[in-house]
Amino acid sequence: MEYETPLFFRVMKYAADADRDVIDVVSGNPDWEPPAALRNGLREYADLEPDAFQYAPSVGLTELREEIATRRGVDVEQVIITNGTGEANYLAMARALERDRGDEILLTDPVYPYYPGKTTMLGGRQTFVATDADGQLDPAAVREAASEETAAIVVNSPNNPTGAIYPAETIRKLVAIAEEHDALLVSDEVYDHFDLEGRFASALEVESAHRIVTNGFSKSMAITGVRVGYAIFPHDLVENARSRHMLVNVSTTRPGQYAVLNALRETEPAYYERNRDLLRERVETFTDALDAVGAEYTTPQGAFYVMARFDGFPGTLENTYRLIDEAGVAGMPGEVFGESRREWLRFALVTPRIEEAAERLATYFG
Amino acid sequence: MEYETPLFFRVMKYAADADRDVIDVVSGNPDWEPPAALRNGLREYADLEPDAFQYAPSVGLTELREEIATRRGVDVEQVIITNGTGEANYLAMARALERDRGDEILLTDPVYPYYPGKTTMLGGRQTFVATDADGQLDPAAVREAASEETAAIVVNSPNNPTGAIYPAETIRKLVAIAEEHDALLVSDEVYDHFDLEGRFASALEVESAHRIVTNGFSKSMAITGVRVGYAIFPHDLVENARSRHMLVNVSTTRPGQYAVLNALRETEPAYYERNRDLLRERVETFTDALDAVGAEYTTPQGAFYVMARFDGFPGTLENTYRLIDEAGVAGMPGEVFGESRREWLRFALVTPRIEEAAERLATYFG
Repeated sequence: MEYETPLFFRVMKYAADADRDVIDVVSGNPDWEPPAALRNGLREYADLEPDAFQYAPSVGLTELREEIATRRGVDVEQVIITNGTGEANYLAMARALERDRGDEILLTDPVYPYYPGKTTMLGGRQTFVATDADGQLDPAAVREAASEETAAIVVNSPNNPTGAIYPAETIRKLVAIAEEHDALLVSDEVYDHFDLEGRFASALEVESAHRIVTNGFSKSMAITGVRVGYAIFPHDLVENARSRHMLVNVSTTRPGQYAVLNALRETEPAYYERNRDLLRERVETFTDALDAVGAEYTTPQGAFYVMARFDGFPGTLENTYRLIDEAGVAGMPGEVFGESRREWLRFALVTPRIEEAAERLATYFG
Repeated sequence: MEYETPLFFRVMKYAADADRDVIDVVSGNPDWEPPAALRNGLREYADLEPDAFQYAPSVGLTELREEIATRRGVDVEQVIITNGTGEANYLAMARALERDRGDEILLTDPVYPYYPGKTTMLGGRQTFVATDADGQLDPAAVREAASEETAAIVVNSPNNPTGAIYPAETIRKLVAIAEEHDALLVSDEVYDHFDLEGRFASALEVESAHRIVTNGFSKSMAITGVRVGYAIFPHDLVENARSRHMLVNVSTTRPGQYAVLNALRETEPAYYERNRDLLRERVETFTDALDAVGAEYTTPQGAFYVMARFDGFPGTLENTYRLIDEAGVAGMPGEVFGESRREWLRFALVTPRIEEAAERLATYFG
């Protein structure tokens, strides 16, 4: 089995090695402050007795699981605390493929590239369903693609890279399709706190034994490096997922879990609102510059990303490098996300230098 | 695919639910202080700029990888920082099975139960090679068991549960057997700092493209909950392991990596020596009590564990529960570790109450 080194590592390396100043809008690392209570939680943890430095329960600290279960309206037994949303998605997709209901994973195009990577690693195969120009997914197209071979449908809303948020009706229909085919809907909701227009609908709103919801604190608390996420499984699927989690990782990091619990309890809604406001401003600044040069682009309903297409400048890897060298802006080539966005570039609005990046693009393409 | 909930969770739960005071000598969580520099590293991390809270490189913080590479005398490119030694072993075993050189994993009996669990999860099958009364592994027995189907030989020295440390000659021969069969030796050396008699030999001392060494800081720094370990791969096998690590976990926790790096740099040898001294004392106290009641036992050369056999009291799960209820001591039933030690019980000497536990056993079996 071979996995390709993700292109975005190559892009980041190229940008880092460039001779000139480059604004990094490549990857989705928040540039803002984590909650104060997150920092305080780490400080508190550092002073605890030695036994607090030992294994947390494999499924996660009980109080953190309870806090999440209460907030999400699920049974605590359904919650597994994972090494970020990345492990949560891995567990969910592995669980779907282990059910021996087929080896096909339905994914969207464009797609977050880790999903097809995980699919191959887990011995499954990908079928891609194209989304529309706005990144919306038509449930009818998913229904048409689904078959007896379908083990899971994996979706991400708010979406990376398109910024689309799927309406409640779409989510409801996707769950229904999963049920019809005895498959699982895996709903990755890691950007739920970055619902810029108040549209977000969680798959948890649809009662079903055929949906797994994954999430984490990497984006909402600006702590991608800390590695605390979670998966919410249907009751009859959680046991084996717990075993896989234990056999792969034993547990995820306890200082991180402790700090996240503290931050969940102590952080006011204003913290999250402030970060949404910041993103809304950046979207406006950035898309104004795209308008100014007549580029086509997606206005994100959520998440961190703007996709853009510049006339005569397709979003190939070669042009991504050119943009680094000639404009000093490092984006992501659209081909990373699948066939449908080969002409496009993705920009992650998670740097304080968005205005400068916008100006550079305006100058370069102007 | 089904995985059994490890028996030791059931034992710990039974002990926790008991009506009486129970001394927990079930699992291998150190009860001593982590290094002061580990705590300081967490405190320092809590004050860093927001960008330090974002993704570490997937393979681990560069400075930590360099520190490990220098200490272990390997190329930094061979080092992957993992979510504890648990993930390191998972990556190593997955890598062995993905080479399509057979689906058999050779394991010892007795065995650390996570190894057969991981084998099943990864689609491999186990063949067990019995160790002798002292827990030593005869390379001739391994050579006899090895075949074209052998993907890996997985060993653990210092050993959990027997306390055996394999001589350099054994390690050298195991690497040779792996080479002969185009298989991999996976050498889990997580207890290397608990070499109580100065006998430890690392598989890194044997140059080979057929050995993977796994290790971590959970035991040496008394931080099983923090989750920082590492794997050292041969050059031609590291690339795919990096991809799997990325696709499963993205990276392991950055505050933990930061704190471990600080502790590696700042901790004096006296810290590790003190913990070895403590264990040596506990081994003596505990085995004196076993001598007093005429029990058979293994004197550990390393690691945390003593295995004992009491006349007329085989180490079944039922007797483990009886020992909890009637003696107030919670050990591990030998059957957890395989066929050969069904009569035995394992005791983990990682509680300050070892003297009391020894007295309780002396009274109960006396």
